[in-house]
Amino acid sequence: MSNKIQDIKCLFEPRLVAVIGASHNKNKIGYKILENIICSGYAGKIYPVNPAGGEILNIKASKSLDDINGNVDMALIVIPAKYTFDIVKECAKKKVKSLVIITSGFSEIGNIEEEKEIVDYAHKHGMRVLGPNIFGIYSSMVSINATFGPKDVNPGNVAIITQSGALGIAMFGKTKIENIGLSCVVSVGNKSDIDEADILEYLVSDKNTKVILMYIEGIKNGEKLVTILKKTTKKKPVVVIKSGSSKRGAIAAASHTGSLAGADEIFSDIMKQCGVMRAESIQEALIWCKFLANAPIPKGNNTIIITNGGGLGVLSADACEKYNVTLYDNNQNIKKTFESLVPNFGSVKNPIDLTGQTTITGYENALNATFKNKNIHSIICLGCETAVLGADKFLPAIEKIYLENKSAKPIVFSLLGGIEIENGIRDLRGKGVPIFSDVCEAVSCFGAMYVNYQNVTSSISIDDNIKKIEIDTSLTEGIIEKVKQDKRQFLLSYEAAGIMQAAGLNVLQSYVGHNMDESVMYAEKIGYPVVMKVVSKDIVHKSDVGGVALDLENKEEVIDAYQAIIHNCREYMSDAIIEGVEIVEMVKPGTEIIIGARRDKTFGPIVMFGLGGIYVEVMKDVSFRALPLDNREAMSMIKAIKSYPLLLGVRGEKKKDINSIIDIIIKIGTILQKCDSISDIEINPLVVYEQGEGVKILDVRILTFKL
Amino acid sequence: MSNKIQDIKCLFEPRLVAVIGASHNKNKIGYKILENIICSGYAGKIYPVNPAGGEILNIKASKSLDDINGNVDMALIVIPAKYTFDIVKECAKKKVKSLVIITSGFSEIGNIEEEKEIVDYAHKHGMRVLGPNIFGIYSSMVSINATFGPKDVNPGNVAIITQSGALGIAMFGKTKIENIGLSCVVSVGNKSDIDEADILEYLVSDKNTKVILMYIEGIKNGEKLVTILKKTTKKKPVVVIKSGSSKRGAIAAASHTGSLAGADEIFSDIMKQCGVMRAESIQEALIWCKFLANAPIPKGNNTIIITNGGGLGVLSADACEKYNVTLYDNNQNIKKTFESLVPNFGSVKNPIDLTGQTTITGYENALNATFKNKNIHSIICLGCETAVLGADKFLPAIEKIYLENKSAKPIVFSLLGGIEIENGIRDLRGKGVPIFSDVCEAVSCFGAMYVNYQNVTSSISIDDNIKKIEIDTSLTEGIIEKVKQDKRQFLLSYEAAGIMQAAGLNVLQSYVGHNMDESVMYAEKIGYPVVMKVVSKDIVHKSDVGGVALDLENKEEVIDAYQAIIHNCREYMSDAIIEGVEIVEMVKPGTEIIIGARRDKTFGPIVMFGLGGIYVEVMKDVSFRALPLDNREAMSMIKAIKSYPLLLGVRGEKKKDINSIIDIIIKIGTILQKCDSISDIEINPLVVYEQGEGVKILDVRILTFKL
Repeated sequence: MSNKIQDIKCLFEPRLVAVIGASHNKNKIGYKILENIICSGYAGKIYPVNPAGGEILNIKASKSLDDINGNVDMALIVIPAKYTFDIVKECAKKKVKSLVIITSGFSEIGNIEEEKEIVDYAHKHGMRVLGPNIFGIYSSMVSINATFGPKDVNPGNVAIITQSGALGIAMFGKTKIENIGLSCVVSVGNKSDIDEADILEYLVSDKNTKVILMYIEGIKNGEKLVTILKKTTKKKPVVVIKSGSSKRGAIAAASHTGSLAGADEIFSDIMKQCGVMRAESIQEALIWCKFLANAPIPKGNNTIIITNGGGLGVLSADACEKYNVTLYDNNQNIKKTFESLVPNFGSVKNPIDLTGQTTITGYENALNATFKNKNIHSIICLGCETAVLGADKFLPAIEKIYLENKSAKPIVFSLLGGIEIENGIRDLRGKGVPIFSDVCEAVSCFGAMYVNYQNVTSSISIDDNIKKIEIDTSLTEGIIEKVKQDKRQFLLSYEAAGIMQAAGLNVLQSYVGHNMDESVMYAEKIGYPVVMKVVSKDIVHKSDVGGVALDLENKEEVIDAYQAIIHNCREYMSDAIIEGVEIVEMVKPGTEIIIGARRDKTFGPIVMFGLGGIYVEVMKDVSFRALPLDNREAMSMIKAIKSYPLLLGVRGEKKKDINSIIDIIIKIGTILQKCDSISDIEINPLVVYEQGEGVKILDVRILTFKL
Repeated sequence: MSNKIQDIKCLFEPRLVAVIGASHNKNKIGYKILENIICSGYAGKIYPVNPAGGEILNIKASKSLDDINGNVDMALIVIPAKYTFDIVKECAKKKVKSLVIITSGFSEIGNIEEEKEIVDYAHKHGMRVLGPNIFGIYSSMVSINATFGPKDVNPGNVAIITQSGALGIAMFGKTKIENIGLSCVVSVGNKSDIDEADILEYLVSDKNTKVILMYIEGIKNGEKLVTILKKTTKKKPVVVIKSGSSKRGAIAAASHTGSLAGADEIFSDIMKQCGVMRAESIQEALIWCKFLANAPIPKGNNTIIITNGGGLGVLSADACEKYNVTLYDNNQNIKKTFESLVPNFGSVKNPIDLTGQTTITGYENALNATFKNKNIHSIICLGCETAVLGADKFLPAIEKIYLENKSAKPIVFSLLGGIEIENGIRDLRGKGVPIFSDVCEAVSCFGAMYVNYQNVTSSISIDDNIKKIEIDTSLTEGIIEKVKQDKRQFLLSYEAAGIMQAAGLNVLQSYVGHNMDESVMYAEKIGYPVVMKVVSKDIVHKSDVGGVALDLENKEEVIDAYQAIIHNCREYMSDAIIEGVEIVEMVKPGTEIIIGARRDKTFGPIVMFGLGGIYVEVMKDVSFRALPLDNREAMSMIKAIKSYPLLLGVRGEKKKDINSIIDIIIKIGTILQKCDSISDIEINPLVVYEQGEGVKILDVRILTFKL
């Protein structure tokens, strides 16, 4: 076990805790935290520290850390910001293992420097830091509630990691209402040292934790987070709530590729890539967590809906489509199972409509048949209160059926009716039955469950599947060196083409002729027809000024074009530095695509994919993925765009060469990862031909970081 | 007042009610309905009718209708289907005004014929029919609950119209939980005679009804519904729930235009056109109705968010964008109002973050300042339970603020916290305070409110604004007559062009040359360059067989092309009937658009709009509207597509001639409305040029109904 993980473990399983700033004043946080630790039944040693000494909550307070007898696993710091660094130094002397800095007044109000100094100092002395600006940590492992949040916590197997304080405490309180058992609650606040990724690294192998809920406002180190999220979701479900999905909340990303979509689209796409479920509201997230913590993993995708109201059945079928829940549709098998149980005017198709005349026995029979049928893997059971079937019948039957079968197959219930039904729902939820007033809420749980099912049953291990791409780094380094010498941030087109070639990419043949003779020589080498373009960093819109000539068929045309281009460019800007003329092969038309790779502020190296021109610029039809990615993930990002059918061939066209696109995505991703100086790569357009006929990169734009 | 409305009124304000099939058996519907009528405190006369006579619920039962002393306004029929028609005949003899047929067993199980006979018979004898296959009607006007639904109903100002039985009763019951006051509940069932539109026609001027909720499964007469919905939403909000939004639920529409989108997209677009709010779930619909029934109409769009948790503020800003709620953004005015009330590290931008340290006084001051500021029109007040601010402080303050200000400006609350907060929310909701656990629910109410605000404040009266388009019907009738004589369903291209010309549309110049000389004559008339196309109903893919020639510059080329076309077509199909060759002007390229008009099974004449080719076929980027429509509605349908920016001009292009597109939409809509024989019109493509430069219709496809 690495030293790092050992440190995090101290937070979850401390044997001795010091509360530095423990207070005699009941209204102070330094009192509330101590009170919560004591109330939570923590069996380890508790040392309140207060220079005034005396007794707090019947425990003798130590006047200083030196008075503590033993090794401090966790020091909770609840003193004003201005004294914090001094106390951290004392903690270092005492060889404290981990610091939980509750105190606010650091980077969140601009005091970035001191926060950094504290962390640096702590690291030098072997201490990890949680916080500052947090409400503490709860861990069921040793039954410690070291927070100033709610007193009364149910231990269980849902872990919460929250960046927000006020909202985090309130959410923590709400788990009690939903009767959600918690394995831990960690407030990460300013994330000066320990962040979500560190906590996940511990939780992924924590036996008490079955489900993880994260509330995120911003991400500091997305690369680290993505890596651990991919690992975690293969083992247990992760639900995330992230605020700032609207334009008003999202920060406009700086570079061109990023400007195509708000940062929220990138976040959303990458969470999907990681197998994380994103909830739209706190309520939704909590419902999912509770359901996922208790339901068995289904044995397959076939879901059946049983109802006594046709309308409710249709509403739930709509919701199944929204949440990607697969409705079982083997009508023959369905008919065999349910035919004898459904009246003539009911439906023996999925949703199974038992009709409004059904009694509770009808439901019991239908559900029993459902549990017995091995082809059905999960059940959505819906009911409307009717003249013949009220709360008195529904509620006890549902409780009994659930308790008897809850480990056999996932089942979720939704009832619609009056006050007795509503009270009954609340009552059954208290008892752990997954039952909801709202059909959509019920179905959304199945949506979350099936994301997890895909994650855990997919047999491919991400890391093993990443294709190793060789890059000729001597080549790339040479090109980048030249760019740096020129004090440029952009690569000239032949330089960019050189970088592509270093990754073995199928690029357009392109040479720079520095005079007429060279131009003719290259044209002959490439073979006719060719295109000629001026090479000059002073001339941006080359076509507009007559710096481009197309479809040159022979030597004579090349000579004429060379003269015309030089003449036009001189006329446009007499002092432009013209390096020469680029000679490129002429290509046949195909489907145009844009592929980009850039370093996202949040997630580090990412790739972007979309269909050329209008699709990207106007329709914003793009998808993003974090690097590294394997072929399967590259395929999923291609499929994710709405215009994907164009690549499959429409209007009688044949399927396009999707494998070549995947190859390019993986390769430019690798270039970005291996060449630290490069900040942006954009292939625009990439022309894709029919399957087996490959692609052509028509233009590449590569940027480096500011010097 | 029309006779028709008089009839509907009987259902809502009956003075004498007969329950035909009133039963002595407590488990029978015929007993329950009578019991509900008596319990509801109905002051009119009640006559149970039962051939056995005796007393039911202490009322003497009449053995037959003849025994009733007085005029029957409403006869509730709860006898088996097989006796129903006979009773209807007796009702006619007794001159009953309206029939409420609870009984099932008619069109819903295929017994369509008898249902139709009953309605025809009823109409002949001046009676209207509600049902069959319903649970009855509740009307607060005369305090009558003539349903077998819940006993205990709160009178109020929300009207419910439901097509579904089981779901309707359950929803009816749920109103009690949400403490929603009802003006009426009408179960329309099979809609054999009275449908949603009839009920709306009554409710639009019913003073007791402030908000209308409809649960719809399918629409029989969409045209009638659209007309009355447009009128109703100008006066009061209408919320609709429609199931079947998923592919599984939606029926594939038959014709080509319809196949572009499931019927649900059409429904959704047309509801927006009518100003109707579509709820995603029953819960959402009920919440909106309650809020709309109680909140004042805002005086403007500026909404402010006040919170003590930054995270909650961001979540609600996200929700505001989702629900089209406008956040007030005059930062100067906001700063002036709130600066002194927000701590240094809080935010005086919208959302206003009072910070987690705020006390209840901080909230009160901020809210008072908000109510005083005339530039702020509505308020979203959010709170997180914190160490300094718990349920004991929040709840009474919210109640007080709401009661004091509820008629001044719309306000909605959301609190996040533990059990006390949750119980407090339930308690306050019982008292009518619009407060929610979930931020999205709170904000969604404002979304609904602002749809209504737009509806009622928009000064344009729909009907007055419909542009009158003249169609030369003698021309269209002549063309259609010829098509009928030919026993065709499709119009030849010159015929379709003729129909367009009848509406004064700017069509391509096109003539049919029946021989070479005629062809040359027409080409000279049009002016060069021209295009030539074979005219033959036997040859569909004209280009593929060499039946088209482009860019003909002079007489000689026309002669060559004529010979080539005839030769190619003969070679392709020697016995093809060739009417001649169409000569068309050659047009310059522009933005391609598709406009369609067709008769939808549900909504009657509708129009469709989208950008040409891929946008429609692959991206499904289309919008629909019901006819008739005015310029404003045509503009809104153009704006509704995602690719709309293309019409505004991208990549340095100028804005396109949108007014000409509107003109075409209105005109082909009018053609469809005025020419009964035409089932489908599709202009594909319409080429649009820059603003002021108009459009060109390149191809029109017109279909007629089957003979």
